[in-house]
Amino acid sequence: MDPTIRIDLGRRSYDVRIAPAGLAGVGPAVKEWTGARQVVVLSDTNVAPLYAQGVLDSLAEANIEARLLTFPAGESHKTLATVSGLLDGLLAHEPPIDRKTVLLALGGGVAGDVTGFVAAVALRGLRFVQAPTTLLADVDSSVGGKTGVDHPAGKNLIGAFHQPSGVWIDVETLRTLPRRELRNGLAECVKHAVIRDAAMLDFLDTHAEDLQAGTDGALAFEAGTMTELIARNVAVKARVVSRDEREAGVRSHLNFGHTIGHAIETSVGYDTIRHGEAVALGIVAENALAVARGLLDPNVAQRVKTVLSKLALPTTRPNLDAEDIWRLLRHDKKARDGRVRIVLAKALGNVDLYDDIHTDEVKNALESLA
Amino acid sequence: MDPTIRIDLGRRSYDVRIAPAGLAGVGPAVKEWTGARQVVVLSDTNVAPLYAQGVLDSLAEANIEARLLTFPAGESHKTLATVSGLLDGLLAHEPPIDRKTVLLALGGGVAGDVTGFVAAVALRGLRFVQAPTTLLADVDSSVGGKTGVDHPAGKNLIGAFHQPSGVWIDVETLRTLPRRELRNGLAECVKHAVIRDAAMLDFLDTHAEDLQAGTDGALAFEAGTMTELIARNVAVKARVVSRDEREAGVRSHLNFGHTIGHAIETSVGYDTIRHGEAVALGIVAENALAVARGLLDPNVAQRVKTVLSKLALPTTRPNLDAEDIWRLLRHDKKARDGRVRIVLAKALGNVDLYDDIHTDEVKNALESLA
Repeated sequence: MDPTIRIDLGRRSYDVRIAPAGLAGVGPAVKEWTGARQVVVLSDTNVAPLYAQGVLDSLAEANIEARLLTFPAGESHKTLATVSGLLDGLLAHEPPIDRKTVLLALGGGVAGDVTGFVAAVALRGLRFVQAPTTLLADVDSSVGGKTGVDHPAGKNLIGAFHQPSGVWIDVETLRTLPRRELRNGLAECVKHAVIRDAAMLDFLDTHAEDLQAGTDGALAFEAGTMTELIARNVAVKARVVSRDEREAGVRSHLNFGHTIGHAIETSVGYDTIRHGEAVALGIVAENALAVARGLLDPNVAQRVKTVLSKLALPTTRPNLDAEDIWRLLRHDKKARDGRVRIVLAKALGNVDLYDDIHTDEVKNALESLA
Repeated sequence: MDPTIRIDLGRRSYDVRIAPAGLAGVGPAVKEWTGARQVVVLSDTNVAPLYAQGVLDSLAEANIEARLLTFPAGESHKTLATVSGLLDGLLAHEPPIDRKTVLLALGGGVAGDVTGFVAAVALRGLRFVQAPTTLLADVDSSVGGKTGVDHPAGKNLIGAFHQPSGVWIDVETLRTLPRRELRNGLAECVKHAVIRDAAMLDFLDTHAEDLQAGTDGALAFEAGTMTELIARNVAVKARVVSRDEREAGVRSHLNFGHTIGHAIETSVGYDTIRHGEAVALGIVAENALAVARGLLDPNVAQRVKTVLSKLALPTTRPNLDAEDIWRLLRHDKKARDGRVRIVLAKALGNVDLYDDIHTDEVKNALESLA
């Protein structure tokens, strides 16, 4: 039986299915989850050539009228302009779309975030299904209903909460990833380990090599190991999101490593650092801040750093612009009345949100990355 | 006591207040409804010079840090490009906005729809307050949570459901309207009369002259009459919206006159016909269709036409492109699987949604407008 994790959100509940049958099974799943007769697949120019035809064929076999819209690959295209172009394509569609039309996001985190946002605003709300093809999207961005795009002022500043009708994960699609892209997802796995699943840090430690085996674009991980990793991480995210859909409370724990991480990413430029690398630096910096406050045992911070290193994620970065990063933190959409709020670890699996963060603490934490 | 109508939507409930004190009272109301410390007023280039300073002063007196962002006036600017420009302004704001920041829509239907949509997507959702300054916005667009913008493929095709935290109506702002603009609102009042409040058709008949008294930009209506009209119409809309927030059922009744009306508006061009004029034509055409089906007494259809005429709204329009209008109806976001769905009146105060509308029926109905 395919591993399935239920995301429990009342009327908006849905399944995440890790499917050994691969993308060939997505058509029947979309039919089962939505009853759609018309699906528009949205994918980027990297992923579409690899997987779009298989998805379209699977949809057609399920008696679903299906088309493909593509957009330029890369975080730099995660913009309102891309959304606008996709809406143009969608609204010019023949036969015309209607409120029963379902969108299918095929690709990584950007494809999911952009497609979800297009679905949120087209005709004031269409349903959509996620078919993630990166580890980052599998373990993080495809689950939870956050959609949106970046803005020069910061990441994900424009968007909506819009839950998918289902998530279809094919671990085999991960084999075509560059390892640097795989590590974007591994950074989120470390985050999940720190906030909710201490034992997963051991799992990552043990399997660090296997998970990254092979060469760029021809990864050789053991499918069972990857499936277990994904299922475990989706379960962490499902537990958090089910308790707090719209980020009033515990959902903020998912921001661990991301508050400083996002600011670093924006400050140095989305094109020069990968999201997972920024998150790894954010985790190290936020743990350093927690250690400096006396909240966290320095040995635990060191252990997290060691696992990040084994996963070939960065734990240092010289020449960060601390002033700029502080300014960006104050602009973060989770700031309140100009106060910076950061989730800090007290132990593995135990974190809390702190809203009394001072500029000096952040600057000292950034220095620890130098 | 100010007439207040409660829009009952559970956790998203809010008040519509018709305030004799005028816009000078909006600051305390925003404080009461939201507790905001920071408000950004969004208004268009027609309305801002008239009323923005008064609103900013009132907010400042309530100890709220307030700024103004303006955008070009007119339905032709109700676009994603305008939304994008406003988001740029909002996200560059100093001190930075955060999730407690409240937007205030000051202006007509376009200002409300655009501001509501900006609020829906900025930081994945800010609260907003409506301060409508047209009759159309007072009786219709400011209540119900529909936000969004137009697209070349049709009106309101991009948007979100996002309820305001309150609506503050100052009838005195209506005096500066051109009468043609006032009639945009009167067309919606006729719609409300047909779908839910037969006696309001008599009220409109009786007060048709008083409501339009004066000259363009110096309207001389009796404030009590206008207040009663608005309160009555908001009550109709509140009743419908409270039963069906997201248009699964009875909310579709609010589309009476609008399905064909929107298609006419798109076909002839937003710049050559006013929304209320298109709605008036839509009401006449949809009633003609209902009469042709034997659903509606022709005398009732005639009576509605007479009241529209008394309100100086059009009931005929030659040279409509029936093919184009049918095509637009099939693209309408309320269409289902290519089937056109139209709300038809069976009697005053009694309407139903029909989904078996044939192209010939629409063409005959449009011919009745010739």
